[in-house]
Amino acid sequence: LLTESQRDRLEVVLVSPRNPLNIGAAARALANFGFSRLSVVAPYEPHWREATSAVGAEKLLRNARRTQYLAEAVADCSLVLGTATLSHRKPEQPVIRLPALAPIIQEKLARGSRVALVFGSEKRGLTRDDLALCHHLVEVPTHPAQPSMNLAQAVAVCLYELSAPRNEDSSAIAGPGAPASDLTAADPPATAGDLGLLAEVVAQAMAAANYSPAIMRNANHRQMHLLLRRLTLSHGDARRILGLFRRILWQLRRRREPN
Amino acid sequence: LLTESQRDRLEVVLVSPRNPLNIGAAARALANFGFSRLSVVAPYEPHWREATSAVGAEKLLRNARRTQYLAEAVADCSLVLGTATLSHRKPEQPVIRLPALAPIIQEKLARGSRVALVFGSEKRGLTRDDLALCHHLVEVPTHPAQPSMNLAQAVAVCLYELSAPRNEDSSAIAGPGAPASDLTAADPPATAGDLGLLAEVVAQAMAAANYSPAIMRNANHRQMHLLLRRLTLSHGDARRILGLFRRILWQLRRRREPN
Repeated sequence: LLTESQRDRLEVVLVSPRNPLNIGAAARALANFGFSRLSVVAPYEPHWREATSAVGAEKLLRNARRTQYLAEAVADCSLVLGTATLSHRKPEQPVIRLPALAPIIQEKLARGSRVALVFGSEKRGLTRDDLALCHHLVEVPTHPAQPSMNLAQAVAVCLYELSAPRNEDSSAIAGPGAPASDLTAADPPATAGDLGLLAEVVAQAMAAANYSPAIMRNANHRQMHLLLRRLTLSHGDARRILGLFRRILWQLRRRREPN
Repeated sequence: LLTESQRDRLEVVLVSPRNPLNIGAAARALANFGFSRLSVVAPYEPHWREATSAVGAEKLLRNARRTQYLAEAVADCSLVLGTATLSHRKPEQPVIRLPALAPIIQEKLARGSRVALVFGSEKRGLTRDDLALCHHLVEVPTHPAQPSMNLAQAVAVCLYELSAPRNEDSSAIAGPGAPASDLTAADPPATAGDLGLLAEVVAQAMAAANYSPAIMRNANHRQMHLLLRRLTLSHGDARRILGLFRRILWQLRRRREPN
């Protein structure tokens, strides 16, 4: 089971929520399952104000962090999980079904890492740009005839899954959480902020080297974000690669194009 | 996993629900998890009419059964489970925590029995008279500081638990390294040859960018080999990174050092 301090390292992020009742109900679900950190990205202002009176979650909503962009909200998290129903889009990241998620997150939290669980807006879910900031997608196994869940209910189901005591708890932790684990004993995993900075410098180097025509830049940028997340970099390795690309960028810029 | 006809033997019963939004959201949760039988006991009439337009659950609500008393709603069920948070009352029945419930219900449904899952009203939960009709109580393991769940969220969490695929099909998901390996099913891991070629081109780009003084080159080269192996690159990703470094190297070489 998660300790109090482990729960405090889980950040629940709502991107552009519209319905004030949903915001309040999502906050209440956090409180129901013992979580306290809520971030709201670019909420619709009047509805946000209306939301802050959810029964039993007033304090949690008052303490919620507000950011303009998803990148800010997840900057200090080393594992960012986007929730999706996957009925429409073919995902570009690995997909974890919710019943398999708990050990993966528990292992991360137990090591002191911060984890973000990101929910899209009621209408459209997470955009492609939002998804490019996620390491994995989490799929709630819903019925194909009605796959799309209410926002607050999706939050409740995910947090229930993470906090419910299960018999195989102890043994499961050694299992599927493993990918990033061996390399990072001494070197903590790269945070979303590390990866954002690295992506920015690599993109500048790409531009300085005329790597891709302007028309391809957005697509390449997204691809690069996805690639960086597939690599499960450590903090130290992200710094090393950043150092190399900064040097390359500086050299490309100080040299003239030949005539 | 539950078959279609097993799902049809699970009756979700809402006793005296007040909030039309909750009724609609509860119906949607049934649809999300592939259930279809909803009974409503003594609803508050105007709110019931208002509820019947829940997004994606209209048909389910139209087909919902209405009864005056709980006893009628559960009359043909051989297992009646009352949901409760148990913070106030000392229960008189055996209590099953939700994570342990699925096998009990699945076994009943598989034998052809009907099972009712009963939810009380938002304000007061199930009364003593209601509870007297239940074989067992089901407890959703919530946090003591905020044990009381929103009605529709409680319905969603319970139905998720009953329908989520667990151990039997964990092989589809789990195994060490699961997240990274799903994605690379189509994209095989980079070979030593891929990594050797990539290391060579990165080293040339480092040299062309005067990244490290000559005396550090061997050490840096070794570090970079180690780093490339830590990344567990796929073949496709190694090709992508190689393409970028080839472009950078070419640009660095064709430009002159400024005097």
